[in-house]
Amino acid sequence: MYYPEPIAKLIEGFTRLPGIGPKTATRLAFHVLNMKEEDVVEIAKALVNAKRKLLYCSHCQNITDVDPCYICSDKTRDKSCICVVQDPKDLIAMERTREFHGQYHVLHGAISPMDGIGPEDIRLPELIKRLNDEQVTEIILATNPNIEGEATAMYISRLVKPIGIKVTRIAHGLPVGGDLEYADEVTLTKALEGRREI
Amino acid sequence: MYYPEPIAKLIEGFTRLPGIGPKTATRLAFHVLNMKEEDVVEIAKALVNAKRKLLYCSHCQNITDVDPCYICSDKTRDKSCICVVQDPKDLIAMERTREFHGQYHVLHGAISPMDGIGPEDIRLPELIKRLNDEQVTEIILATNPNIEGEATAMYISRLVKPIGIKVTRIAHGLPVGGDLEYADEVTLTKALEGRREI
Repeated sequence: MYYPEPIAKLIEGFTRLPGIGPKTATRLAFHVLNMKEEDVVEIAKALVNAKRKLLYCSHCQNITDVDPCYICSDKTRDKSCICVVQDPKDLIAMERTREFHGQYHVLHGAISPMDGIGPEDIRLPELIKRLNDEQVTEIILATNPNIEGEATAMYISRLVKPIGIKVTRIAHGLPVGGDLEYADEVTLTKALEGRREI
Repeated sequence: MYYPEPIAKLIEGFTRLPGIGPKTATRLAFHVLNMKEEDVVEIAKALVNAKRKLLYCSHCQNITDVDPCYICSDKTRDKSCICVVQDPKDLIAMERTREFHGQYHVLHGAISPMDGIGPEDIRLPELIKRLNDEQVTEIILATNPNIEGEATAMYISRLVKPIGIKVTRIAHGLPVGGDLEYADEVTLTKALEGRREI
């Protein structure tokens, strides 16, 4: 009501984004006023393009601008190993390690009966289809180390093991650079369970 | 490098805004992917419109979409009293009180020799011109209560008083709802100095 309409609308637009309240939105809007016009236009275009041009890879369900995505169409990658992650951001985290050269499958969520999310609500049927159609020898379960992620990993494991495919789970333990003193009991227990001979 | 180009561009766009780093930008970008397309288009339009449609009021220098702004063109407001603020946001803060019915002048900054900002770099010449052209009887200095704001208030006061215009400064003291115990010495000293009979 107090601001001129164009800036009031921009403030209102910013508040629709997560974690941005009226004060931050106002600060951002005033910053936009001082930006170069071409930069503002570029951000506006990026917003619309991100929404319009992105789709889900029909093969691994990752977000992509080409279908199949660049990982699925990469001939140098190992087709026999699928790493299952919850989220596109988790896939990026895995890629950053530069240690995994197989394929991915993005579930877009985890099984969570509390929130009414069952196996059919995430991209599990698509995974099962891939296992039937392709020559997969190993599945690496890289869902998050929390209740939902563990439940999802357990569910997939029970579903896939009978088919005769090797199922592995990424290790739990102390993070590198962490401190034993501040580690919680569960993590420490898992680290102890997962100990290896050196 | 890892994200598809449309989302990478959006993340890059968000990081240009103040206080938004790569992690927050990624979170915002993924939120945008899950928003309705018309909402995204609306934000994009608001961005461009805010930049293109807003201008400075030729009279009071406030941001506005019409010139003169709605305050300057409001006939019910007292033309003889000008409240000087540093920033359009400060003007809005004053308006929220609903206690001031005069005109404003927005300086867009404060005198700060440390940053090389002198009286000519803020909208002071425009204020002086108004004082010469209009029948002004009082100037309320509502610059911020910090070094730059005080310096600016002092500067304007020395400039304007000889012309015979009444110059006032908004009061310093304890904020309402504040606690004497936690007040800093300077504020408390100012509160003591500014004590009034009740």
